[in-house]
Amino acid sequence: MNCRWIVAIIAALLFVGGHVDDLRAETGHEGWLRYAPLERLAAQKYQTLPASVVVLGDSEISGVAQEELLRGVRGMLGRTLRAGKTQPKENAIVLGTLAELRAAAPGLRPSSELREDGFWLTTGNVGGFHSLIITAANERGVLYGVFALLNKIALDETLTSLNEVQQPFAPIRWVDQWDNLDGRIERGYAGRSIFFENGSVRADLTRVRDYARLLASIGINGCAINNVNADPRILEDSFLPQLARIADAFRPWGVRMSISVDLGSPKLVGGLDTFDPLDARVAEWWRTKVDEIYRLIPDFGGFVVKADSEGRLGPSTYKRTPSDAANVIAHALKPHGGLVFYRAFVYNHHLDWRDPKNDRAKAAYDNFHPLDGKFDDNVIIQVKYGPIDFQAREPVSPLLGALQKTNEAIELQITQEYTGQQRHLCFLPPMWKEVLDFDMHAADGRTPVRDLVAGKTFHRPTGGFVGIANVGLDANWLAHPLAMANLYGFGRLAWDPNLNPRAIAEEWTRLTFGSDPSMVRTIADMQLSSWQVYESYTGPLGAQTLTDILGSHYGPGIESSEQNGWGQWHRADHQGIGMDRSLATGTGYATQYSLPVAKLYESVATTPDELLLFFHHVPYTYVLHSGKTVIQHIYDSHYEGAERAAGYVQQWKLLQGHIDDERYQSVLARLEYQAGHAIVWRDAICNYFLALSGVPDTRGHAGNFPDRIEAEAMQLQGYVPVEVTPRENASAGRAIECLQAQGCAATFRFTRNPGWYELDVQYFDQNNGESRFRVLVNDQVVDQWVANDQLPATKIGADSSTRRRITGLALRPGDQIRIEGIPDREEHAPLDYVEIHPSPE
Amino acid sequence: MNCRWIVAIIAALLFVGGHVDDLRAETGHEGWLRYAPLERLAAQKYQTLPASVVVLGDSEISGVAQEELLRGVRGMLGRTLRAGKTQPKENAIVLGTLAELRAAAPGLRPSSELREDGFWLTTGNVGGFHSLIITAANERGVLYGVFALLNKIALDETLTSLNEVQQPFAPIRWVDQWDNLDGRIERGYAGRSIFFENGSVRADLTRVRDYARLLASIGINGCAINNVNADPRILEDSFLPQLARIADAFRPWGVRMSISVDLGSPKLVGGLDTFDPLDARVAEWWRTKVDEIYRLIPDFGGFVVKADSEGRLGPSTYKRTPSDAANVIAHALKPHGGLVFYRAFVYNHHLDWRDPKNDRAKAAYDNFHPLDGKFDDNVIIQVKYGPIDFQAREPVSPLLGALQKTNEAIELQITQEYTGQQRHLCFLPPMWKEVLDFDMHAADGRTPVRDLVAGKTFHRPTGGFVGIANVGLDANWLAHPLAMANLYGFGRLAWDPNLNPRAIAEEWTRLTFGSDPSMVRTIADMQLSSWQVYESYTGPLGAQTLTDILGSHYGPGIESSEQNGWGQWHRADHQGIGMDRSLATGTGYATQYSLPVAKLYESVATTPDELLLFFHHVPYTYVLHSGKTVIQHIYDSHYEGAERAAGYVQQWKLLQGHIDDERYQSVLARLEYQAGHAIVWRDAICNYFLALSGVPDTRGHAGNFPDRIEAEAMQLQGYVPVEVTPRENASAGRAIECLQAQGCAATFRFTRNPGWYELDVQYFDQNNGESRFRVLVNDQVVDQWVANDQLPATKIGADSSTRRRITGLALRPGDQIRIEGIPDREEHAPLDYVEIHPSPE
Repeated sequence: MNCRWIVAIIAALLFVGGHVDDLRAETGHEGWLRYAPLERLAAQKYQTLPASVVVLGDSEISGVAQEELLRGVRGMLGRTLRAGKTQPKENAIVLGTLAELRAAAPGLRPSSELREDGFWLTTGNVGGFHSLIITAANERGVLYGVFALLNKIALDETLTSLNEVQQPFAPIRWVDQWDNLDGRIERGYAGRSIFFENGSVRADLTRVRDYARLLASIGINGCAINNVNADPRILEDSFLPQLARIADAFRPWGVRMSISVDLGSPKLVGGLDTFDPLDARVAEWWRTKVDEIYRLIPDFGGFVVKADSEGRLGPSTYKRTPSDAANVIAHALKPHGGLVFYRAFVYNHHLDWRDPKNDRAKAAYDNFHPLDGKFDDNVIIQVKYGPIDFQAREPVSPLLGALQKTNEAIELQITQEYTGQQRHLCFLPPMWKEVLDFDMHAADGRTPVRDLVAGKTFHRPTGGFVGIANVGLDANWLAHPLAMANLYGFGRLAWDPNLNPRAIAEEWTRLTFGSDPSMVRTIADMQLSSWQVYESYTGPLGAQTLTDILGSHYGPGIESSEQNGWGQWHRADHQGIGMDRSLATGTGYATQYSLPVAKLYESVATTPDELLLFFHHVPYTYVLHSGKTVIQHIYDSHYEGAERAAGYVQQWKLLQGHIDDERYQSVLARLEYQAGHAIVWRDAICNYFLALSGVPDTRGHAGNFPDRIEAEAMQLQGYVPVEVTPRENASAGRAIECLQAQGCAATFRFTRNPGWYELDVQYFDQNNGESRFRVLVNDQVVDQWVANDQLPATKIGADSSTRRRITGLALRPGDQIRIEGIPDREEHAPLDYVEIHPSPE
Repeated sequence: MNCRWIVAIIAALLFVGGHVDDLRAETGHEGWLRYAPLERLAAQKYQTLPASVVVLGDSEISGVAQEELLRGVRGMLGRTLRAGKTQPKENAIVLGTLAELRAAAPGLRPSSELREDGFWLTTGNVGGFHSLIITAANERGVLYGVFALLNKIALDETLTSLNEVQQPFAPIRWVDQWDNLDGRIERGYAGRSIFFENGSVRADLTRVRDYARLLASIGINGCAINNVNADPRILEDSFLPQLARIADAFRPWGVRMSISVDLGSPKLVGGLDTFDPLDARVAEWWRTKVDEIYRLIPDFGGFVVKADSEGRLGPSTYKRTPSDAANVIAHALKPHGGLVFYRAFVYNHHLDWRDPKNDRAKAAYDNFHPLDGKFDDNVIIQVKYGPIDFQAREPVSPLLGALQKTNEAIELQITQEYTGQQRHLCFLPPMWKEVLDFDMHAADGRTPVRDLVAGKTFHRPTGGFVGIANVGLDANWLAHPLAMANLYGFGRLAWDPNLNPRAIAEEWTRLTFGSDPSMVRTIADMQLSSWQVYESYTGPLGAQTLTDILGSHYGPGIESSEQNGWGQWHRADHQGIGMDRSLATGTGYATQYSLPVAKLYESVATTPDELLLFFHHVPYTYVLHSGKTVIQHIYDSHYEGAERAAGYVQQWKLLQGHIDDERYQSVLARLEYQAGHAIVWRDAICNYFLALSGVPDTRGHAGNFPDRIEAEAMQLQGYVPVEVTPRENASAGRAIECLQAQGCAATFRFTRNPGWYELDVQYFDQNNGESRFRVLVNDQVVDQWVANDQLPATKIGADSSTRRRITGLALRPGDQIRIEGIPDREEHAPLDYVEIHPSPE
């Protein structure tokens, strides 16, 4: 008894910690499931909530559904419900599937038939007592109903005369994680893997259970746990029992575990001399392997396949097609109810950039459209929302409208690979909503993407939504406290793509921070505008994010996409910019769409401004629908975007004292960083296109930095100037660094009027050293810091460029301002420039 | 350069952490010196504050004064002042002594002469520019002026036409620490010593510097760092350099270090065969020792002496007097400006309790009054405020009015030895203020205690205030976040005893938590009432705190003071209670006061109710001025006090969201504990006197516990009943404990009406084990916890008795309630009782 007890107590202290001690450490770990105590008045609304809960089911899912209900009611209302398996002699909350309810409440029938995972919240007579009923076709639906009920309480909604059916829009509502077995996460920005460490599944899977709970609360019913660039070892016999432990952690929350596999596994793991999908031995190997998996994991979800893509093995080795490859695995999975998610992200990354007809955007359609109808019914083609790769702006992938006899799922990216990597605020549901609402004209009537991927348009058996989540071990899952709105928003849109992004943002904010109306409005406003803001300072008009596509995918890297085989060309030259994808004069990509859409994009005149450069090459002086030239739009949008990013800091500061200090400070620090990095972006892009086009900024912004003192122009002691490549990634293309261990200094004199100023020191914070800086005015130290951020950079450049703002300095003409730096390891206390602005009033 | 730099940076990060990262971890470590940013509007008031500060002095104190000004302005206004040694060509803030200012501003004269440590905040022309001037007679005064200026900004006071002189009421404003060299603190409740560990001075004295800063900010100018029960080793030659390190940490803040010494040191440390104060060798030893100390510590404060008291060595060994002992040391100190603080806490703790004439209260007067005039001018007699020992209620010590030719200092206790040990809220300035305002009629006209101790009444060269502080290594110094108001209040009253306790509480609250008016009012209300509340549930009418005087001095221990030689007798018997100290029928103690005071206390009719039992033995049925009988007052005041303690929890809960969660939760937990422990006190005292007197409570409270189920009356599995001694320290005198490692259970049935209830489990949490408990209703676990508090108790009793409140339980008649306990080490999962109350609306 003793040990079991202690385990139970420890588990309870870990799990129900919030309740047991009533201490609320706002680390963000609870996400939107905080169950914060309601204000007294709000709580009174729920006085009549029954005191008992009856759980008719016996499954693990029923168990956690009951536990969650107790936990939520305990947290929000301070009450412990009486839990039992049988109807007490009083009103109760009754949880059970329709089948389980039949005996106790024979008359109960929902107005519309409940689909899998859908649920019905209602009231009615159960066993002679008036009850609040949470029912569904399946156990998972009952759990979802519990979360929905708790959400209503958290959002202060009435429960009287409850009668509400909620159905999921599509059966597939999955997240993928790109976790490597060594614990790193590809394109993950919030710490190491919650699943793996050191080549094995982690011993402690607490965070996996917590993750499954978050996923279940927004209706996510599946998760592929490892990188699509799959390590073959995951299919080794010795690894499977480890996977089973993860599946065990997921199962009580109704989340089916799935894995990514290497198509070469029959050879790499199985020891066959081939992985040819049409070879009978290969088919047999997959069958045996799958049977073994299901012996250990009866609810295993299936396989995700990335093949013939970016160096991965695939059916092309044997001149077979993706359908050959998908079907052999699908066949093995079929008897168990498993699925194959075959990714359409197949393209040649050795395209000849000199050929103006070549176009990576065409690849998915070219590769998969001819195979439409050739895939088994348990194969789903997983299609990125755009034809390229999760850029901040792309047209919808034409493949989504082209598959009529094949299941599909749209792949969205929650992890902000190309949208600021959770260091920049970028709320993605508005983008996703645009994509999902886009009418592909794939058949008669409206055929929005949401209907196509859900299988509604062409009556497919399955389909839906996959989000690349990449949460990590960071306490708050996604590093930026506001980034969790993307995970939440993905789940909500996958459940119901007709939801409005503002409603999602407000709901998330209320659950995450509380219901103070001005706070909710402020945060929702910031979230709603953030995608547009991010786009505007990172390369607008459909030129895609002008980032370094060869490495970090983070800061500006304008030429990184040019003159190489990766095919993300924007084709900027002295005269103009943009990729001509028209049929008439370009790659013909536009014709992959149905006629009405193709016509829209074929003509430069009808292509919307925001996608102009994706579809057409135009001169810089081309006048947009907005009335501005392209080049002036580039300048203006980047300046405006950077200014709006700076505005976020001010907006956020209004919230001090309205939310807990821990999260307040954490967000503030990120927003301040973003405001500085938006200027790095702005300057890189404006300077680059100013130099390339030779067209001046009519507003006089681009290229003019009246408040800036370049580090290389200061009086240097020890510091030496260095050229930065590409040159637009540092101010004036140069920086200074210190190669002497005892430190260096850069000095200049202040010559402006006496007054209060703020001083921005732009420096480079690499992740391979922790330089130390201090700033002196005359001989007085006014600030000092250690450059110890973990930005994705090992060298001087836009990825490492960051800002230290020193506020409230009284400066007098003649003052000597001196920046001292001490290098550390490979980081040589590098400095870019200083800017001095009058203090705001 | 490198290493110095790194040290400087690390120091800056540690010290100026708040500013460098702008992260405000509200641990309470900053105390009232948070320098929280002002609201925008409030900050605008200080727009015209000069941007420069000039420090004329060169001392360490001048250095920290400048640093503090920069830090405060930086924190509150977000500005970095320009610091220099010479007047800039603009308006400035000028810091300097009057002597230092003479050259730059020859016309400057305060309206009244500045005494030592007093300061003058004014404006005037310095070097041709209008300046804000902080000046004083000495450097310490300048530092105090800086703190005063920063306080004005923090409290939103205007600085225009500033012209304010502040003078300290008395020269002696000291704190004592009772720290042992091994790191423990006698009667300290906030962690280990900041000075000592393991027989040595700590290597890291950061906390000592921080403490000195806090002390300086409230005008404390001296600190004795070690236990008055002094370890002789502190005077060993090898120890002195260690002491010098502490003095070095104090010095920049103007705090003089002092130490407590053992009078036997000439023998114990010096190896002489005597410590007879009249022996020339002893005098020589002290002289040599003192000279050596001053060589290392030029500003050494002096010695505190506890002699012939509670087993300490003293002059009585050689039939010498306290003046003989004090003077020999004073003589050695005199040439260096050192002082002797000779404690008047000298009494016989082997008094015969059977002799009704014996009275410990008489001891201080009896021992020291005959010596008036025999002490050297650099001796100060340090007198506890009451004749006994820091009880929650005592009359003022008659000795304070009796010394006319001797310096005196009043000893107050900041550490809450007898007032709840920082687990109970007890704001002491109202008590101190009563004491300081008490008119002793020691001479013609009003002679309040404050004037006597300050040396004003009899024109003594020195005198003042000593507070026993006992801060520890706990981040917030005194464990209870609200207890710091006592340290603050002591400093403020020592500086100006005419201040009003409410003003002190409000000022402290604003500095510590912020200026939200309803929050300030709530906290000040709680503080102001807390002493009275504490007194009312721990033994009122001057019976003193009815605590366990033989051990912890914490929970109730009503008979611990009786029938032994310690002399804290309350003389309760079947008929009545109280100690007759009248001349007519008692010990004659009352005659130690001047005639008007003696007359007041001599008569039972004129003695104020709150001191009745201190001066008189009366029957329980004696009718008070209030109209109640003594016994009914005992019952009523204890019930009312416990109820008011419970009210603090409700008051505090209104502040959620108005202060940071960290301190909110920390205070809440203590107030909830206090509310439970107030009931332990209430029940022990009421039950005891109900049994002893046989007089029933006319209101029916005492002895009636309708909602209570005794643990020993439950159905026990494994648990066994035990008798508790004294019996009033557990409910019904019994408890249960579990002697089997696998755990035990106690079960009962709920028989009341269905409804929402809260359930209080009264259990014992000893510090020699961490038992585990859980509570089940039927088979449902509704709460579980580990008994891991560090209460001052190794056994079952009132010191360990504590409460777990389980709220929001739906109970139905017939429910089985089961408490399971697992013992740990010497703590046997002991339980006292359960109480069940309907949930509040």
